[in-house]
Amino acid sequence: MKKFMNSAETLVAESLAGFVAAHERLVAFGADGKFVRRRTLRPGKVAVISGGGAGHEPMHVGFVGPGMLDAACTGRIFTSPTPDQIVSAIRETEGGAGCLLVVKNYDGDVMNFEMAAELAAADHKVATVIVRDDINPDGFSRSQGRRGVAGTLVIEKLLGAAAEAGWPLDDLKRLGEDLDGRIRTMGVSLRGVRVPDTQRETFALAEDEMEMGVGIHGEPGRARAKFATATEIVATILEAIRLDLSPEGNDRLLLFVNGFGGTPVSELYLAYNIARSLCADFGLAVARSLVGTYVTSLDMAGLSVTIARLDGRELSLWDAPVDTAALRWGP
Amino acid sequence: MKKFMNSAETLVAESLAGFVAAHERLVAFGADGKFVRRRTLRPGKVAVISGGGAGHEPMHVGFVGPGMLDAACTGRIFTSPTPDQIVSAIRETEGGAGCLLVVKNYDGDVMNFEMAAELAAADHKVATVIVRDDINPDGFSRSQGRRGVAGTLVIEKLLGAAAEAGWPLDDLKRLGEDLDGRIRTMGVSLRGVRVPDTQRETFALAEDEMEMGVGIHGEPGRARAKFATATEIVATILEAIRLDLSPEGNDRLLLFVNGFGGTPVSELYLAYNIARSLCADFGLAVARSLVGTYVTSLDMAGLSVTIARLDGRELSLWDAPVDTAALRWGP
Repeated sequence: MKKFMNSAETLVAESLAGFVAAHERLVAFGADGKFVRRRTLRPGKVAVISGGGAGHEPMHVGFVGPGMLDAACTGRIFTSPTPDQIVSAIRETEGGAGCLLVVKNYDGDVMNFEMAAELAAADHKVATVIVRDDINPDGFSRSQGRRGVAGTLVIEKLLGAAAEAGWPLDDLKRLGEDLDGRIRTMGVSLRGVRVPDTQRETFALAEDEMEMGVGIHGEPGRARAKFATATEIVATILEAIRLDLSPEGNDRLLLFVNGFGGTPVSELYLAYNIARSLCADFGLAVARSLVGTYVTSLDMAGLSVTIARLDGRELSLWDAPVDTAALRWGP
Repeated sequence: MKKFMNSAETLVAESLAGFVAAHERLVAFGADGKFVRRRTLRPGKVAVISGGGAGHEPMHVGFVGPGMLDAACTGRIFTSPTPDQIVSAIRETEGGAGCLLVVKNYDGDVMNFEMAAELAAADHKVATVIVRDDINPDGFSRSQGRRGVAGTLVIEKLLGAAAEAGWPLDDLKRLGEDLDGRIRTMGVSLRGVRVPDTQRETFALAEDEMEMGVGIHGEPGRARAKFATATEIVATILEAIRLDLSPEGNDRLLLFVNGFGGTPVSELYLAYNIARSLCADFGLAVARSLVGTYVTSLDMAGLSVTIARLDGRELSLWDAPVDTAALRWGP
């Protein structure tokens, strides 16, 4: 396996150093380099903090900046950040209005963010939103249940915009939990993920196979299937999301096609084109779109489709200005 | 080879349709779907038009919008657009101030853009800038000489901003030709490119090999080398660029690390981190940075480093607002 790196041990630290240097206008390292924070904090607002294992870049550090996150904590590859990192981020960015932790539903992340919330609770008001946007059509069960995947971006964008607009902590938590029930994602992979320290693929696919329902940590998905045309693949995904999400004709839909790291941009737009016309076939109008490589699994060749059922107020939060390395738009 | 597609024949058209649908606020198809143009043209300015083969996405369609290109013409994969496409783009976007064609130096592109310029010359004032940013340290020679690669983005951004600011056609051409001598790029690939219609890799690399000095059309590079650490690879690239570009201490440098389509974001930032500290070692200050997947070669795992020697006026053109699918920043 060939990767641009000097060693598996220093990969994450070197990459984060490059990220902070490239975006020094927007971000800075927090205390002892334990997390990445906005260069300029805005007092009076709720601090929105997220994080997770490395290997999902640009998530979450790429979402730090005005209109989105205040800080992001990065662990080792596919490994939760430590409670110590998260507590440091809370202490440095929480300024009186409280702190909201946005956590993807993986056992390690949930445990460490919970521990950090308890450790910080004496001095800071802390609330947590767990993201579980992964679809679960076949009653797939692991101890953790639905995983948090690409829909995390949508929740972090909307909560970040609401925090920027001055929403209090309780309202943000309520919005986050409510949104979580209205955002669904399903992924497909064309090959396994090669993890730098083991130098091995986490699962192997034959040339005519694909893995449906994958997460973003190299774990196998729900079903191995025969490789098919893009239209067939996207139709399978859309149908599963539709059954699980039950969108209605008056919903304002956000359609998000996300690349897992090794997928060319051209293929993402091709998948988007199919997903969008299938939505139209279902009588569902797409109000907002996002296509790109945002929530990754190292260099996995694959993509996910996310649909969010939003209302007019939530569309305004989506449209609100955001200035981060990965997502950027004006008023 | 697995790709998200329905057929090699329809891949480009389906992907472009998705691109235009996803960014309908910004772009629209031109006449008969032959090119992608800004949704709203601005009369009175020089029209800046580019294009080339498909397979380099988001270039060039992702650069269409206020502050950058007026139109982009996409050919088949790794194949120049036809003169007919380019003439249509000129006729639809040129509004009296003339039209500047920005062309990467590949035989097919140069020939077809030249033919289009001649065909349109009776009714439109047309000038052309050829981009040749590829380094040429070993006297590598093909009929075409230096190729146009990732530095094309820099030239299109600066010329787009200058056109937006009202520069006349002759001044834009002069700036483009002058910039071309001050921008240098070198790429490295970890594997060959798999072209959809042949289903084959254009060159094969062993697990311990890499290809230095690659272009963006799957052609082999200048030298096959033993795979090395990221620091060694980036040092080789930087040294070659430095010899060719001869930057000086008072230059304002733009440092651009570009992914070829199959390279994770984390590795691009890691490479950027090394390049930036090497620049510092050479006494060269980096004034502006760009890191991301912008100029690709399908799903090639690899990256290029571009350095541009700019002056203060050119930095202002770089900083000027741009609103495209791939590059977006405010005032």
